[in-house]
Amino acid sequence: MDRTTLIPALHNIATRLRIDSVRSTTEAGSGHPTSCCSMADLMAALFFAEMRFDPKDPRNPEADRFVLSKGHAAPILYAAWAEAGAFPRAELLTLRQIGSDLEGHPTPRLPFVDVATGSLGQGICAAIGSALNARRIKSDYRTYVILGDGESAEGSVWEAADVATLHALDNLCALTDVNALGQSGPTMWRHDMEQFARRWRAFGWHSIVIDGHDLNAILDALAEARRTKGQPTMILARTIKGKGVSFVEGKEGWHGRAFKKGDELDRAIAELDRQFVPAPDGPAADLAAQIAKPPTSPRPEPARKPLAAPAYKLGDQVATREAYGVAITKLGDADSRVVAFDADVKNSTFSEKFLVAHPDRFYENFIAEQAMIGLAMGLAARGAIAFPSTFACFLTRAADFVRMAAISDVNVKFAGSHAGVSIGEDGPSQMALEDLALFRAEPNCTVVYPCDAVSTERLVAAMADRPGPAYMRTSRPKTPVIYANDEAFPIGGLKVLRQSFDDVATVIGAGVTVFEALKAYDILRAQGTLIRVVDLYSLAPVDQDALIVAARATAGHLITVEDHYPSGGIGDAVAEAVAGAGFAVHRLAVREIPRSGKPEELIDRYGISARHIVQAVEQITAAPARPGRTERTASAVSVDPASTPASPAR
Amino acid sequence: MDRTTLIPALHNIATRLRIDSVRSTTEAGSGHPTSCCSMADLMAALFFAEMRFDPKDPRNPEADRFVLSKGHAAPILYAAWAEAGAFPRAELLTLRQIGSDLEGHPTPRLPFVDVATGSLGQGICAAIGSALNARRIKSDYRTYVILGDGESAEGSVWEAADVATLHALDNLCALTDVNALGQSGPTMWRHDMEQFARRWRAFGWHSIVIDGHDLNAILDALAEARRTKGQPTMILARTIKGKGVSFVEGKEGWHGRAFKKGDELDRAIAELDRQFVPAPDGPAADLAAQIAKPPTSPRPEPARKPLAAPAYKLGDQVATREAYGVAITKLGDADSRVVAFDADVKNSTFSEKFLVAHPDRFYENFIAEQAMIGLAMGLAARGAIAFPSTFACFLTRAADFVRMAAISDVNVKFAGSHAGVSIGEDGPSQMALEDLALFRAEPNCTVVYPCDAVSTERLVAAMADRPGPAYMRTSRPKTPVIYANDEAFPIGGLKVLRQSFDDVATVIGAGVTVFEALKAYDILRAQGTLIRVVDLYSLAPVDQDALIVAARATAGHLITVEDHYPSGGIGDAVAEAVAGAGFAVHRLAVREIPRSGKPEELIDRYGISARHIVQAVEQITAAPARPGRTERTASAVSVDPASTPASPAR
Repeated sequence: MDRTTLIPALHNIATRLRIDSVRSTTEAGSGHPTSCCSMADLMAALFFAEMRFDPKDPRNPEADRFVLSKGHAAPILYAAWAEAGAFPRAELLTLRQIGSDLEGHPTPRLPFVDVATGSLGQGICAAIGSALNARRIKSDYRTYVILGDGESAEGSVWEAADVATLHALDNLCALTDVNALGQSGPTMWRHDMEQFARRWRAFGWHSIVIDGHDLNAILDALAEARRTKGQPTMILARTIKGKGVSFVEGKEGWHGRAFKKGDELDRAIAELDRQFVPAPDGPAADLAAQIAKPPTSPRPEPARKPLAAPAYKLGDQVATREAYGVAITKLGDADSRVVAFDADVKNSTFSEKFLVAHPDRFYENFIAEQAMIGLAMGLAARGAIAFPSTFACFLTRAADFVRMAAISDVNVKFAGSHAGVSIGEDGPSQMALEDLALFRAEPNCTVVYPCDAVSTERLVAAMADRPGPAYMRTSRPKTPVIYANDEAFPIGGLKVLRQSFDDVATVIGAGVTVFEALKAYDILRAQGTLIRVVDLYSLAPVDQDALIVAARATAGHLITVEDHYPSGGIGDAVAEAVAGAGFAVHRLAVREIPRSGKPEELIDRYGISARHIVQAVEQITAAPARPGRTERTASAVSVDPASTPASPAR
Repeated sequence: MDRTTLIPALHNIATRLRIDSVRSTTEAGSGHPTSCCSMADLMAALFFAEMRFDPKDPRNPEADRFVLSKGHAAPILYAAWAEAGAFPRAELLTLRQIGSDLEGHPTPRLPFVDVATGSLGQGICAAIGSALNARRIKSDYRTYVILGDGESAEGSVWEAADVATLHALDNLCALTDVNALGQSGPTMWRHDMEQFARRWRAFGWHSIVIDGHDLNAILDALAEARRTKGQPTMILARTIKGKGVSFVEGKEGWHGRAFKKGDELDRAIAELDRQFVPAPDGPAADLAAQIAKPPTSPRPEPARKPLAAPAYKLGDQVATREAYGVAITKLGDADSRVVAFDADVKNSTFSEKFLVAHPDRFYENFIAEQAMIGLAMGLAARGAIAFPSTFACFLTRAADFVRMAAISDVNVKFAGSHAGVSIGEDGPSQMALEDLALFRAEPNCTVVYPCDAVSTERLVAAMADRPGPAYMRTSRPKTPVIYANDEAFPIGGLKVLRQSFDDVATVIGAGVTVFEALKAYDILRAQGTLIRVVDLYSLAPVDQDALIVAARATAGHLITVEDHYPSGGIGDAVAEAVAGAGFAVHRLAVREIPRSGKPEELIDRYGISARHIVQAVEQITAAPARPGRTERTASAVSVDPASTPASPAR
C-alpha cells in the first residue's frame, strides 16, 4: 500500500487506539491512558503495517512476536489486538474487572501475551529470548518490544543490551517510547534523545532517533531495522505523554490516572474524535484485513529420544551440582526442546557439560543473572524447556524475574548450586540460605532438593516433564550415591531411609543434611535409640500424607534439619504440611549470618550437624509425650514400602 | 615524594601484596590469587600514594573510603591493610579460617570494611552512597572503588553509573581491573578497552584508559580524577590476570584456584621475589608511614530533636503508606541522620513528603531499585539511617542487595508499599505476596507490618532506633486509625484487640487482615461465638510468649490470616513461635497467582476475608478438641493488659 493511503489509515487507527485506551481506563476507574496515548502511533505502525501475525491464531510459532515491556500500557495492547480482530472491541470495556482476562498489566492468560509484564525492564529480556528462539526453531519471525523511557534506568535493560549485541540479534527490534515523564516526575533524561542514543550505540545497537508521532518516520525506522544486519535495532521515539488530549499532553500528575467520567472524559473523547482524517474507504484500506499472515504449515515435532537411566554406583562420591550437569546434558540428548543458560559459573554449576554436548542450545550471559532468567522466560514461552543455573545465592539477583516467571507460569527450570554453609570457606556472600524461601513462596513453583546423584538426575527429568516453573537446589560437597539407578523420584514424594516399629522421632533432612541425619541415626542406634530418617527431596509439593504418617508413628516428634535459614525452608514446609493433623515441628537451621570456615566446621557451628540432631532427639523425647493423635503401630506399617529405597544404603 | 623514589617503592609494595595474596590463599587452600595479582599495582598506588586514611582508625569519618566491589580479591585487600600497619602481616595466613575475620570475601566484621562484597555489582552502588555521604556530612573525603571487568555485565553497575552522573559525583573514583578473564572463560569484551570506555563515557563518566601495571600511568590517572569536576571518573586499567607469576599470567583455568603447596607455590614465590627492585631505604621511602592522615578533630554530634507524637484521630481513614510518608518526614525533622530514597514512586509511597521537607537528604534514583538499595547501604555504613522505599513487590528486584545488607548488618530500613491483593486492579505484577518471605528469611532483619497510621508512625521510629536492617510493609487502601496516639508499639510485641474468657479461637492478622478479623469477630459475636483477635504488627522478632498464651487460652485454636502467599509470612512466623509449646496453626493466605479486580473482591476470592475467617473458626472449633497443654482460664487472665490498646476501637 502506498504511503498516501497507508498513513491516513494508520493515523485513524492510532486515534482509535487512543480513544479505546481512554474509554477503557475510565470505565475501569484506573489505569494509564496517557502512557498509552504516547505510543499509539508506534502501535498502529507495528500492528497494521509491520508485523506478520494472525489475530485468530496468536500462538502461531512463525508469527512475529510483540512484547509490551512497559506493561502498564496494557490498554493499548488490548486495543490493538481488538482492532486487529482478535476479539470484539466491546470487551475492552471489561478492563481490570475480576471476570476479565484484560488485566491491569498483561499476563499470559491472554493468548497473545507470551510473558507477564508490569515489572519494568523484564520484557526486553524476554524479547531477547524470543529472538533467540527464532534461531532455535529456524524461523524467520521477528520480535518487537516497546520499552518506556523511565524503564531504561533498570539495570536489567543494559544486561539485555549487552546480551542482544553478543548474539548479534538482527531479528530483534526494540522501541523506546520517550515521553519524558515517569510516574512521579520527569524521567532522568527527559527529552534529551542523545542521552539515550549514545548509550544504546555504546552498547552496540543500531539506534535511530525519530519523532514518535510521525508515522512516516516510524515506518522508515522499522524498515531500516529490518535491513540492519548483525546487530539489534533500537528505535528511540520522541513522544508526548497523553498525545492527542491537549489538556494532559506533556503534563505532570497524569501518570496512572484515568479520565473522570463526565466532562473530563467527554472533552478528551471529543478532541480525539476530531483527529480522524479523511481516508480511503473500502477493502483496500482495511489494514486489519491486510495484516501479513505467518506461514501455517505445521512444524515438525521436536526431536525426542528415550532418556537414558542414571548410571551411578552406590557409594560413589558425586556432588549433586555435578550430577545436575550430567543430567541436563542427558536430557538435552533426549529432548531437543531443552536449553541451558549460564552467568559465568558454568564450571562450578557443571552446566558446561551441556555446553560441550549442545553448544547451539547453550546461552552464556556472563555475569548478568537478570538477563539470564529473562532470556529463559522468553525461550520457555516459545516452547523451550529452559534450565538457567548459577550459584543459588545469585538467583536472588533475579528474584523479581522469578516472581514474574511464576505469574507467567512458564517452563523455566531454575537450578541453584552451592547451597548453604556447606560451601565452606568462601563465606556468607556465596552461601544460599534464602533460596528455598524465594522459590517456595511462589504458589506454582515446584521445588526439589536432591541429596545424591541418582535423585538429582531423576528429578531433573521430572522437573522437565512437569509444566510450569521449578527450582532445583544442589550442593557443593561430594555426597555418596545412596539410591539405585532404577529408583523412582516422583515430584511430591519423599524417601524413608530408616524406619522401624520403635522409632522415637522422625528426622527430616534434604541435601547435605540427609547425611547428617544418617550419621545421627548411627550414633543413636549405638545408644539403643531408633529414629526414622526422611529424605524430603520434594519441598513443593510436599508429601503431606507420608509426613503425617511418620509423625503419628513417632509420637509426633518431628525434627527438621536444613542448610538454610529457618524461614521459608524445610521446617516451614513440614510444619504447614502437618499442621492440619495437629503436629508441630522442631527445627534445626542456620540461625545467624555465618562466616568462612571448613564445611564440616560450619555445619557443626551453625547447629545442623549429626551432633545437634542427636541432642534434639534426646531433648524432644525427654519432654512429656506429645498429645494424642499418634498411632505408632498402625502408622509404622502404613508406610508405603515403595517409598523406601530399593537398595537401602546400609 | 618524587616519582623516582615513589615508583620503585610502590612497585615493591605491589610485589609484596602479590606475594601475600599468593601465600595466604595457598595456606587457606582456596581463594583467588590471580584476581589479586592483576590489581596489585592499582592497590599499591591507591593505598600508598593516593588515599588519606589512618590504618589504626579506619572508621575515621573524614577518611577516604575504599570499596572492593570485586570482593573475591579479598586477600589483597587484607594484604594492603596489613602493609599499611592495620594489623600484623602474619595474620594474613589465617585467611578463610573459622576463627579469623579475614573471610573469603570481605565483611564488616573487619573495621576497614564498610559493606560486605562478594556479590558482584554491589560495591559500586555502596561507593556512590559513601560519596553522597561525604556531601551529607560536608566532608571532603573521596571514595574509591575497584570493580572487575566481568562484573561490568551486572545491570546494577549501569544503574550506579547513571545515578553517579546524576549527582555529578566528582568525589568518586572507580577503577575497573580489566584482566579479561572471568570465572569460566574470557569476559565478554576481553581486552577491548574501547568497549568499556565508550559505555562509561556514554553514561557520563570521565573515563581514562591505562595500562594497569604502569604505576606512573596509574598515579597520573588518579591525579586526573582528582582534578575532574562535575562528573565521576572511571579508570579502565588493562591488566593481566595472575600478573607476576608467568606460568599463570593470562591463562584460563586459574580463576579461584590457589597455588598448591610445594613446587607450584615455591615457583610462584621465587618468581615474585625476583621482581623486587632496588629502592631508596630509610624513613623517607617508608610509604606506610607517610600515608596522609585524615583530620581528627571531632565532628559535631548529629542534630537531634524530640520526636513529635502521632497526631491522628481514632477512626480517621489513612493508608499506612501515607502514614509512612508522614512518619519518616517527622523522624527526619527530629534526627538529621535520617535519609530517604525513591525509585520513581514517591507519590505512591508518600516518600515525597520527606522530599518536600528535607530535599537535601532525599535521593531519587528513578526506576533503579538495586542502585537505590546499594546507595542506602553505603550511606548507612557511614552513619546515616537510610529509608529506601518502593512498591514492596519491586523490593524483590533488589533481593540480592537485601541479602548483602543483612550480611553487612547496616541501618537500612526498607519500606514496601502496595502489599498484597488489596491493591486491587493493577494485578499480580504490582502485588507483593513474597515480601515477608524475603525479609523474614534474613536472620537479623526486623520485620514490622502496621495496620493503622498510629502504629505505622510509632514503628517507623522504633525501626530507626533498633540497629541493623529492618523492613516495614505498608498497604495501599485507607484503613481506620484504631490506636490512640500514645499507644506504644515495641518491636517484638503484638496487640490483643479482642479478648474474653470465652474465646474459642485466636485469629491473628496484620495490616489489612486485622480489619477482616475484626469484622469476623462482629459476625461471630452476633452468633454468640467469641474469638480473640491479635494484631501481629511485629513479625520478626515475634512475641512468642504472648502467642503461646493466646493459644493456651483458646484451646490451641490459632488461625492466621494474611495478604501474602502462605510461605514465609504470618502463618510461618506464628507456627514457628508456638511449635515449641506443641501448637499448630491454621493458615488463611493467598494460595494462587491472583488477578486484577476490586480490592474487596480479591480479598474475598483469595480466601482472606471475614467470611473465610468465620468459616475457619467454625471448622477448627467443630473438630475434636486439640490435645492438652491448653489452660483456658489461667491463660486468659495472664494476657498482659498493657498489650491491649489503651483505646479499644469499639
